[in-house]
Amino acid sequence: MTVDADTIAFAHRLADAAGDVIRPFFRRRIAVADKGAASGGLFDPVTEADKGAEAAIRAIIRRERPHDAILGEVFGEEAGTSGQRWVLDPVDGTRAFINGRHEWGCLIALEESGRPVLGMIDQPVLGERFVGVNGGAALHVQGSVTPLHVRACAGLEDAVLCATHPYAYFTAEERAAFHRVSDAVRMSRFGGDCYIFGLLAMGFVDLIVESAFHRWDVAALIPLVESAGGVITNWQGGDPGAGGQCIASGDARVHAAALKLLAG
Amino acid sequence: MTVDADTIAFAHRLADAAGDVIRPFFRRRIAVADKGAASGGLFDPVTEADKGAEAAIRAIIRRERPHDAILGEVFGEEAGTSGQRWVLDPVDGTRAFINGRHEWGCLIALEESGRPVLGMIDQPVLGERFVGVNGGAALHVQGSVTPLHVRACAGLEDAVLCATHPYAYFTAEERAAFHRVSDAVRMSRFGGDCYIFGLLAMGFVDLIVESAFHRWDVAALIPLVESAGGVITNWQGGDPGAGGQCIASGDARVHAAALKLLAG
Repeated sequence: MTVDADTIAFAHRLADAAGDVIRPFFRRRIAVADKGAASGGLFDPVTEADKGAEAAIRAIIRRERPHDAILGEVFGEEAGTSGQRWVLDPVDGTRAFINGRHEWGCLIALEESGRPVLGMIDQPVLGERFVGVNGGAALHVQGSVTPLHVRACAGLEDAVLCATHPYAYFTAEERAAFHRVSDAVRMSRFGGDCYIFGLLAMGFVDLIVESAFHRWDVAALIPLVESAGGVITNWQGGDPGAGGQCIASGDARVHAAALKLLAG
Repeated sequence: MTVDADTIAFAHRLADAAGDVIRPFFRRRIAVADKGAASGGLFDPVTEADKGAEAAIRAIIRRERPHDAILGEVFGEEAGTSGQRWVLDPVDGTRAFINGRHEWGCLIALEESGRPVLGMIDQPVLGERFVGVNGGAALHVQGSVTPLHVRACAGLEDAVLCATHPYAYFTAEERAAFHRVSDAVRMSRFGGDCYIFGLLAMGFVDLIVESAFHRWDVAALIPLVESAGGVITNWQGGDPGAGGQCIASGDARVHAAALKLLAG
């Protein structure tokens, strides 16, 4: 199905509103709550930026599209009746954010009957917005719009591999699988969270291998990567939408080769 | 010794000139020569940006300060008679650069009688310039100048650790030493090259452990980190200026604890 122009413009306004909330918090000393501590899990800060941005987005949706459902990383699920759902991760890459790095983004996805049909990575400090919708991907920077397309890459030996962290998000078994891939590529680079999917859509990196994703981490990435001509699946080659393991490639040949190595 | 205002202004002009050369190459498909292939070493691209920027800087020095010596990553050594030497790495972080990431920089240092007395990390795409000189560090962004100071951090258990890559630049022995440190910290983040030393000077990360540095990788970092109140040494706690292993910390307590773990 085609996403209409009004809905696309609405999504841009959501990203604008979130960016306005997030921007002033970047590189300020902010209160960092440790969600992970209570549950004994990973250190996973939720910043004031995160909460404020998701609240801002929800307020606009509630006011203008009250029948849409919402799933957000911070405030969870709100039901709707329109068949459309907004999936939000206002600051994906909170660790990078609190380290003063730029490789994080605000993720906004729109689902139609459970399938992501619009995906946005907005980096409000850099003023970069990666958008995938209706079979086209583009980078929006201060009013200029550049179409995005992945680059060709014949095989793993030529590929640039990215992952957010070499081990923090992988189980021991996943780490071994990841190393089979990282040993086969030309170059690996770590760090990046959602931002590296923008780099893949731009054609600057070839392969991304991640795990421990939630629905809100991946929903926006699916339309972006696919609209740019890439492939995004779970480690078994299936729908990555449920979260967990995720692999994305610019070139299907690299994807097939990496899936084989991940399988062992 | 104090670096005079004219010399500081001259250094800014060098960075301006380098940035003008580098900026148009960012996120363009550029010719990448593989220096490493000939010597059987690491993949280590030298971009057109790298060469052009160093040539631009050298031309200005030759014209305006012909008696200064120069050491540059691309074109090597030129002798001088003034007792001052410019040490240049025009694009430190070429891998990040060719991946379309922002975490790279142009490094410019001035040595007086062999000691670095001025250090600059310029990121010409972000418009950020980190400068350390005469006991003060500052971030210059579009005309605004913000003093920089490292943050306090009582121990490794509270520290954010950064390194450019978890293994590519370490020997097997260094990797084991690095893991003793990374197992002890609150959080590790990879990627960044020189840029993470700017984040340390800003007080957003606490500890950086690197190896395989050259003189031109480290010369600019020494005055920057020290002027911001931090500590930068080799892994034995000595002068890091010769290159090789390097460790930098915002807080001396973190530095001492990390040196102990690196020693085994």
